[in-house]
Amino acid sequence: MTPNPLAYLFSPKSVAILGISPQRSHGQSTLLNLHKGRFEGSIYLVHPTASLFEGEKVYASLDALPQVPECVVLAISAEKALEQLEVAGRMGVRAAVVYASGFAESNQNGQRREAELVETAKRFDIQLCGPNCMGLVDFYSGFSAYSGSWPEIAHRGSVAILSHSGSGCVVLGNAGRFGVSRMASVGNGSVLDMADYLNFLAEDSETRVVAMVVETLRNPSAFNVAAEKMARAGKRIVALKNGRSTKGAAATIAHTGAIAGPHEAYEEFFRECGVITVADLDELVESTVLLEQLSRHPIGTGVAVIGISGGEMAMACDLAEDVGLRLSDLTHETKMEIERLMPNFAYASNPLDARTGSSDVYEQLLCVLASDPEVALVAVGQDSSHTLSDNQVRTYAGVARALTSALDKIQKPIVFYNNTKENVHPLIAAPLRESGVPILLGARNGLLAISKLMQMADRSIATTTSNRPQLQANPRWIQRFQLPMPPTEREAKEFLAECGLPVMKEAFAENAKQCAELAAEIGFPVAIKIESPDIAHKTEVGGVVLNLTSAAEVSIAFEDMLATVKHNCPDAKINGVVVQEMVSSGVEVLVGLSRQEPFGLALAIGWGGTQVEIQNDVRLMLLPCSRATIVEKLGQTRVAKLLKGFRGAPPADQDALIDVALKLSEIGRAYGHVIDAIDINPVAVLPKGDGVRLLDVLIETHAQKK
Amino acid sequence: MTPNPLAYLFSPKSVAILGISPQRSHGQSTLLNLHKGRFEGSIYLVHPTASLFEGEKVYASLDALPQVPECVVLAISAEKALEQLEVAGRMGVRAAVVYASGFAESNQNGQRREAELVETAKRFDIQLCGPNCMGLVDFYSGFSAYSGSWPEIAHRGSVAILSHSGSGCVVLGNAGRFGVSRMASVGNGSVLDMADYLNFLAEDSETRVVAMVVETLRNPSAFNVAAEKMARAGKRIVALKNGRSTKGAAATIAHTGAIAGPHEAYEEFFRECGVITVADLDELVESTVLLEQLSRHPIGTGVAVIGISGGEMAMACDLAEDVGLRLSDLTHETKMEIERLMPNFAYASNPLDARTGSSDVYEQLLCVLASDPEVALVAVGQDSSHTLSDNQVRTYAGVARALTSALDKIQKPIVFYNNTKENVHPLIAAPLRESGVPILLGARNGLLAISKLMQMADRSIATTTSNRPQLQANPRWIQRFQLPMPPTEREAKEFLAECGLPVMKEAFAENAKQCAELAAEIGFPVAIKIESPDIAHKTEVGGVVLNLTSAAEVSIAFEDMLATVKHNCPDAKINGVVVQEMVSSGVEVLVGLSRQEPFGLALAIGWGGTQVEIQNDVRLMLLPCSRATIVEKLGQTRVAKLLKGFRGAPPADQDALIDVALKLSEIGRAYGHVIDAIDINPVAVLPKGDGVRLLDVLIETHAQKK
Repeated sequence: MTPNPLAYLFSPKSVAILGISPQRSHGQSTLLNLHKGRFEGSIYLVHPTASLFEGEKVYASLDALPQVPECVVLAISAEKALEQLEVAGRMGVRAAVVYASGFAESNQNGQRREAELVETAKRFDIQLCGPNCMGLVDFYSGFSAYSGSWPEIAHRGSVAILSHSGSGCVVLGNAGRFGVSRMASVGNGSVLDMADYLNFLAEDSETRVVAMVVETLRNPSAFNVAAEKMARAGKRIVALKNGRSTKGAAATIAHTGAIAGPHEAYEEFFRECGVITVADLDELVESTVLLEQLSRHPIGTGVAVIGISGGEMAMACDLAEDVGLRLSDLTHETKMEIERLMPNFAYASNPLDARTGSSDVYEQLLCVLASDPEVALVAVGQDSSHTLSDNQVRTYAGVARALTSALDKIQKPIVFYNNTKENVHPLIAAPLRESGVPILLGARNGLLAISKLMQMADRSIATTTSNRPQLQANPRWIQRFQLPMPPTEREAKEFLAECGLPVMKEAFAENAKQCAELAAEIGFPVAIKIESPDIAHKTEVGGVVLNLTSAAEVSIAFEDMLATVKHNCPDAKINGVVVQEMVSSGVEVLVGLSRQEPFGLALAIGWGGTQVEIQNDVRLMLLPCSRATIVEKLGQTRVAKLLKGFRGAPPADQDALIDVALKLSEIGRAYGHVIDAIDINPVAVLPKGDGVRLLDVLIETHAQKK
Repeated sequence: MTPNPLAYLFSPKSVAILGISPQRSHGQSTLLNLHKGRFEGSIYLVHPTASLFEGEKVYASLDALPQVPECVVLAISAEKALEQLEVAGRMGVRAAVVYASGFAESNQNGQRREAELVETAKRFDIQLCGPNCMGLVDFYSGFSAYSGSWPEIAHRGSVAILSHSGSGCVVLGNAGRFGVSRMASVGNGSVLDMADYLNFLAEDSETRVVAMVVETLRNPSAFNVAAEKMARAGKRIVALKNGRSTKGAAATIAHTGAIAGPHEAYEEFFRECGVITVADLDELVESTVLLEQLSRHPIGTGVAVIGISGGEMAMACDLAEDVGLRLSDLTHETKMEIERLMPNFAYASNPLDARTGSSDVYEQLLCVLASDPEVALVAVGQDSSHTLSDNQVRTYAGVARALTSALDKIQKPIVFYNNTKENVHPLIAAPLRESGVPILLGARNGLLAISKLMQMADRSIATTTSNRPQLQANPRWIQRFQLPMPPTEREAKEFLAECGLPVMKEAFAENAKQCAELAAEIGFPVAIKIESPDIAHKTEVGGVVLNLTSAAEVSIAFEDMLATVKHNCPDAKINGVVVQEMVSSGVEVLVGLSRQEPFGLALAIGWGGTQVEIQNDVRLMLLPCSRATIVEKLGQTRVAKLLKGFRGAPPADQDALIDVALKLSEIGRAYGHVIDAIDINPVAVLPKGDGVRLLDVLIETHAQKK
């Protein structure tokens, strides 16, 4: 196995710092940090005019160095960095860090500069961190190319930190709650982005968990591949995605896009990549601590919570609901056992108020909870802040003792959380640390971290890969969709019907006889509608007749309609009549595809009909989606209750609906490069066995936007 | 003004401890705490057998004391406490603390015991804290009757702590983030409950803020009165209500109750009392800190956020949306001014990335934001943990300096928050403390506390008292509702019509002539429906004819219907026909009253029709409610968008709908003692000017439940 080329960036044998100067500069910070990390490789200082810096030799240029450094730190302006990267490349330098801003994040000039930077780095195969970043620190090699202050509190450990924004490194590097392996401020990430770092970290024996602060994903499929590599290596990722609420990325798309925001697409994407997502820095830290410190992995999804305050257990119950944590229903046996252990307190529930922390009872209660087959993990919630007086702590320390003894007797994981965000008192923390019990801070954030862990565990069980044959794109339709004019409704229906979707049957008739024949083919009852480019509101001019039940009725209705419409609109050009299958019942659902950059087309499903925006009941899935995912997402909607047969109505044909969604997912895969959106609204979902009908259909192509 | 009798509890001149014993006991803790607080009054120790405790005299009984103590601490078992309270009462003791559990929280025996305790306390007018509590601490008088460990970290201040659960006192007393005035572990609160303590604290010159952990409210109206007294005294309350998710309190009520949970009623109640509610202990602490430390009060509701990291400002934007914080839209002038100050960074937005913390620019940016008329408060989000290295802190300390200088130049409040939950580095915290700038910990919890503050400020502006005349109850209906059989739909409609509500017009006819006459009175079109106790499904047997437009049509339809129905159901007893106004259009809304203990009847409004449970779009209001509240709550529903005239439909008559809700609120006030629920579903809301019609009506009485 060849070593990952990012090793030149994280543990080079030699480094040159360009831009060393006596003022408080990034170059100076870089040098200081190299000393703090006790970097043992060669360090060269470069400055065009200075000759000495703090007693060390300064070279006038890169060319003047006695050897080619493996890595260069360009602590100089954007324009100069560009120039020097070229020099370094020609010399054979393998890695570079560019701190300067003034690239793509600034203006058009900066964008041009960044394009050049990328081109140069690629031409010379230079691993480049930045630009517009704070650099990186490697806590194992001791190498750093970091413009910020050295994180004094950080110790060596198994968490790697990646952040687009420099502040993410400052906060996580200084969190002091977990040990750090490597840290990179990714900046604009135009050469090396998250996916590249993840690929490196997946192979890195010191790293077990990656904590990341993400602003954008330039290349989702590369990220996905890297995340899978991490997962295969048994490593976990937690991500804080900033800019969730950004309304910027407005819909390129039909209705669907306006309903489900781009954030939902990000959430889905990360979920599929097995990445835990959180909403703020404190949540990020707790999830990271849990993943780093957890030595036993939960098998199953149920959690039991125990504490010694009824009030706090009530709070735990509320918070569990808030954060989506599933508290197990205890079995009858477990309850009996609890009641036996607490004879004067006949209330065996989850969360469990143990009432006492100082006796053997607590330990026994822990063992009983852990032995329940519904329970995969036991969470212990206890007041244990360092601000408590020592007396109080002594009273509560029994909990920690009980916990560590119980741990030897059970196989399942136990997680401890302090009910507030304060650090845990050392008398309580020490035995827990020794036994390898994760310590989380804050009831909400602790339970949230546990909830995210359990959801991810659930996910890895549920995911199955589908081997369904993929739909083949028809070149004729590809060609059609590349034309600038948008597909008509008739074309859209024809296309979907050809793909095997149950479009409502309809046909065009020019005379009464033909109309009656077509109606018989379609099957009664039918509706007929006038077809005229000049008539927008058909009903008002007598251009719609519903519920015709025989050929004779159709024939008469055709003649009547033509006469009435001609009378009402003497100048309208009338092509004929469309005869349609009557679909008057069924639950109205929307199924659609919409473009959700950077992820391509996504599938949407939810409450349809005219009130789709008001119902706001649509869920989004990235392509390709499995039947299981569609069932799960549909189950989260309100309209799913209608489909089940609400208030005595017969259950609707949900299987047929899911077939439509699955087929649409395949269409999205086959035609994703030419189609921007498909809106099927409504799909009428008929009673079970009667299938579905696609009533209204709209296709938007990429070509029509141009 | 006579002193509040609770002064005997918080600052007695003398105290007797019953249950002093050499083992580690509550009596021993109590004595230790009295010493730690340097209580200067007389302390008497009582134990039936011991004669000395740590060198101090122990009396054999209360009778043996040289004086009658003002307060007794009953650190003895439940049964003995009951016995000794009687003794103390007879002696003239004014206050008592009962630690013991084994009262109403335990079993039937305990409930009996608690009833006796309450009776004894009331008979002798003893102010009693507990039972089942940890007692109380007064940081000003130095008195305590506290069974827990003395909170060493707590210092004197203006926050009073009240908690039903003892753990609330442990956590808040040891938070160390705010100064404490008094602290009470309320326990079962059967003699003195939250309202009594609040009444005392409203008059207490040392207390400005109350932080409370609430489990239940026994007497909402007393709480409301006390909360108003607090508000009039300019004092604030923050409450953590545990047991939000309890499904226990199932609906006593019709549909409405099942939709809006009891927690919503609590939220509404606290909101109306001006109490800020939070979901966990950390949130409680941050809100308390903000209220305690805020010296300038925001006028308005808009907030501007500033920081020096683009990533963190994006996170602030996301979190603001999560916690319901309204970020102001900056005016054009403000944006121009920001762009002038940051010429190379043309992105003036809120939250604002200042990019630099160390220059005068930051101060000027603060002043510009504060001068925007849309901004009522400026929040500064900055990484500033004590875990940061000193170098880093020096870089960031510029923010604190800029902030304190800006504060002198503006009138509006500035609030500082650390982006993580860690305590702020002393170099940054010191200048902020000196200038009286609140320091909050954690981006989410900081922004949440600010959001709650602004919502409460908004509330105090919006609230107006209504002087509408109250509906007078009609004794005839009161009498009727007290009968055990539930009101029929006809009675319910008659009742509501009498109250002035626009019930759909209908009348009963026995023959065709009468039917035609009544139809003319009602106004065409009408519907007619067979009235028979034997026919449940009218439509199926030809018992419903819709849309009759003239007297002649009605006459014919009547005869036809009777013939058809008699043919189809030869054995059915037919009373006649109900002739009804036709209401075929309109938006279907639910308006109702439901019992939400302990708050009595509540008003519900939201999406109606048959899918009311699926829509899950109903909002709850406690009685009485103002027009403004109803408008606000209706505005939060999805159905409100339909009412506005969705997709070209005419706007519906929302005013008429709100009249119905307001009238129902009055009905609830007048008939609340006999009615348990009123369900009007649907109310058909017709186009503006056409009013509303109450189509279906159900009344449940209290009597029918028995």
